[in-house]
Amino acid sequence: MKTRGPLHRAARAVARRALRRAARQLAPPPAELEPGAWRLERDALGRLTVDTLPLAGVADRFGTPLHVVDAVRLRENAARFVNCPTAHGSGVEIFYPYKTNPVPGVLRALHKAGAGAETASPYELWLAGTLGVDPSRIVYNCRIKPESALHEAIAKGVGLINAGSRLELAAISAAARATGKRARIGIRAAVPGTLASHCGERIDDGSALQTFAEALERPELDVVALHAHPNAELATADELRAYVAAVLRFAGALRTRLRLDLEIIDLGGNLVCPTVTHLSPVVARVQMALGREAPPPERRALLTIEDYVELSTSQIETHYKRAGRPMPRVFLEPGRSMTSNAQLLLLTVVQVRSPDDTGVSTVVLDGGINVAEPLKGERHQVFAANARPGAERRHYRLIGPTGTSNDLLYPSVYLPELQPGDVVAVMDSGAYFVPTSTTYSFPRPGVVMIDRGQLTILRRAETFEDLVALDRLEAA
Amino acid sequence: MKTRGPLHRAARAVARRALRRAARQLAPPPAELEPGAWRLERDALGRLTVDTLPLAGVADRFGTPLHVVDAVRLRENAARFVNCPTAHGSGVEIFYPYKTNPVPGVLRALHKAGAGAETASPYELWLAGTLGVDPSRIVYNCRIKPESALHEAIAKGVGLINAGSRLELAAISAAARATGKRARIGIRAAVPGTLASHCGERIDDGSALQTFAEALERPELDVVALHAHPNAELATADELRAYVAAVLRFAGALRTRLRLDLEIIDLGGNLVCPTVTHLSPVVARVQMALGREAPPPERRALLTIEDYVELSTSQIETHYKRAGRPMPRVFLEPGRSMTSNAQLLLLTVVQVRSPDDTGVSTVVLDGGINVAEPLKGERHQVFAANARPGAERRHYRLIGPTGTSNDLLYPSVYLPELQPGDVVAVMDSGAYFVPTSTTYSFPRPGVVMIDRGQLTILRRAETFEDLVALDRLEAA
Repeated sequence: MKTRGPLHRAARAVARRALRRAARQLAPPPAELEPGAWRLERDALGRLTVDTLPLAGVADRFGTPLHVVDAVRLRENAARFVNCPTAHGSGVEIFYPYKTNPVPGVLRALHKAGAGAETASPYELWLAGTLGVDPSRIVYNCRIKPESALHEAIAKGVGLINAGSRLELAAISAAARATGKRARIGIRAAVPGTLASHCGERIDDGSALQTFAEALERPELDVVALHAHPNAELATADELRAYVAAVLRFAGALRTRLRLDLEIIDLGGNLVCPTVTHLSPVVARVQMALGREAPPPERRALLTIEDYVELSTSQIETHYKRAGRPMPRVFLEPGRSMTSNAQLLLLTVVQVRSPDDTGVSTVVLDGGINVAEPLKGERHQVFAANARPGAERRHYRLIGPTGTSNDLLYPSVYLPELQPGDVVAVMDSGAYFVPTSTTYSFPRPGVVMIDRGQLTILRRAETFEDLVALDRLEAA
Repeated sequence: MKTRGPLHRAARAVARRALRRAARQLAPPPAELEPGAWRLERDALGRLTVDTLPLAGVADRFGTPLHVVDAVRLRENAARFVNCPTAHGSGVEIFYPYKTNPVPGVLRALHKAGAGAETASPYELWLAGTLGVDPSRIVYNCRIKPESALHEAIAKGVGLINAGSRLELAAISAAARATGKRARIGIRAAVPGTLASHCGERIDDGSALQTFAEALERPELDVVALHAHPNAELATADELRAYVAAVLRFAGALRTRLRLDLEIIDLGGNLVCPTVTHLSPVVARVQMALGREAPPPERRALLTIEDYVELSTSQIETHYKRAGRPMPRVFLEPGRSMTSNAQLLLLTVVQVRSPDDTGVSTVVLDGGINVAEPLKGERHQVFAANARPGAERRHYRLIGPTGTSNDLLYPSVYLPELQPGDVVAVMDSGAYFVPTSTTYSFPRPGVVMIDRGQLTILRRAETFEDLVALDRLEAA
């Protein structure tokens, strides 16, 4: 509440509404992709289906909010990474970051399709073991690694442990000595222009080279890999090329200065998901203030999975061919680009309010930011699961069920007329939706998988009792 | 990654670092409050204690991250609200919003101290019942209320059901008819200048009055209350006065236009917590970019609990005295101001990196945004749990353990020298920390309570197994 008085506030409100109306007239609603982009179809009754299974029926059966995983798309994505033909024929090795979507049923499907596990915490390392992942197919990454987890990783022969900092070398050495095994390690190097403060040693000030030198002097460490990570999304061929070139320059320096021949180059992740648009914080705020959506992304120039695998490996191959040295193994850690578009989130319309004076109706859904945190900073397409024949499109503000003004999913979307009980599908819920969910006022949703029309429950929805299962309920 | 080339990037990095150094020199570190503001003391060994119990010892015993609730402060806060002497002597009735801190042990202590339950979802309504709260001491609020929850609420005689929208009246009436009981309801009215799109009917365009009129015509509804909520924090007497005046103006209109005498005026919540500073999104981003903290809040002018209770009730009393009508009951729903400063979060230092070229060392903690989401938009004080005698203060960037660049708790704080194994205490973790926690790569922390030196576990920490307890682990 401002203290400037009602007149000032009223004037601001009028100005804001006028601005919104103007903005809406100036810019058409963003172009939408067709459901086919997600292997969805609309049947003759206007129902959105996966493999002929109507999504609204799935919502009825299991309740909402509900995540629906498309097993076919998941396998397709994994195959595009794992089996992508590359010029030199050696392909890449894929390690899926557990943090992106830690649902065991999803992880198991990816492992079956040939992906290894990228783990970034003791919990994720434990989970990979529990799911029976071969230790040689596990990468254990930064940011911090407790002694007990290092022991476990080295004892069972984890394929690669990437140190995020020079400060980790002593602890890894100690754990290796204690287990009587050499540790296969990589070092995370921050290529110039990326952020080193959180993870990685800087290349530009010599820290990364020094860290490799120190590691090579420790007999307990088998220094096999250079690990890097682009800080921002890799969306275009130019961005990828510049990033890989920086990694290769440093690999060259490791050879020249330290006589180190790398067994592995681990390029990390961050390939763009073409159907999700990142919103800068400024755009996100302007959107919210104006009740208008940002313009759609420029989709043609975006890197595909095949481009990404082919361009990065051929660039590395060319480099090593010229140098007359054997090609290293190439590790990729694709998260978003692997699972984002293989999952969607079903939500039910609970209330449809009358349009406000800018023509936007507020729609309350049964899930909000509590289950869809990424929508704070990303634009995801949303469909009505049932489009009534001849239904007109309207402007809707989609909000969640929690009692907070931040619980806003879409400031304004253009959808066929909605009624209470209707189901909407938020696309691309396969990355970061599940792990960032909270129990804010509502239990967390279940996850089901559709595999060529067959439904399986991967994770059941939380009950009220689950939310207090770890609590002391009786009085002290 | 930008595509503009290394020279451009290097230039930007140099400029940024220069700016940071300049900013640090221009502004001194923000003034800190003493530990006593939270009932903490430093003993002769420099250890931070609650009732002589050293916090670092609590961390050792239970592990970190760990929430520590101070039962004495919790009861004090509740008593300041519940027993606050007011000019007219009738006091206020307090309903604690479960969403702010849904830990049963905390809620039980508040109920014991005289607070009722403000519930905003079927889960919270269920939890209040499970904790044995007398139905007459439960308020059931917006945003949406499923039929089954309405039935339950009306059947058991919940003290007040506040409708967030005109659209809820039919459903409440239907549930009342079905249970054969009249429903005691209030209607949420959005005072001019506050946001109505999410919850509430607008006063300024007549919607709120119309909704009351419609409710009064429904025989199943007993319209007892006007519910309002300030959209932003109430930090000063002026803000409170303007807000209460707007509520009273509308209460007057209800009397004049609809002959409605209110039994209850429910003023909602949002009283400021004096030891937490809200950061605007712009300030938060500037802070992050510059690695500098925002200036400290102006604390003297802030409303205390006593001011808040006294000012709001006396304003209402004066209004009704002048009108020659009986004073209504006053409901308050204080969340942040009730529990924020009665809880702190202990985190352990895992890694201390060398200072960067702006003189800031990055410190990795074992908990980050996954357990402290409010730090994205709020400034909370942080203490070293052990201050070594004569330790120099340094600038630290405190980051969390997850592998994401957003996992930043403090861009730059000024603390006595830290070493791995040291424990830090983040103050005011009693509001919105627990319900916004995620299982992102790490299990969620436990909650313990200290009551005059006695320790009780309120909620145990999650185990790895807990995180997959709802999953199908064997292959399909």
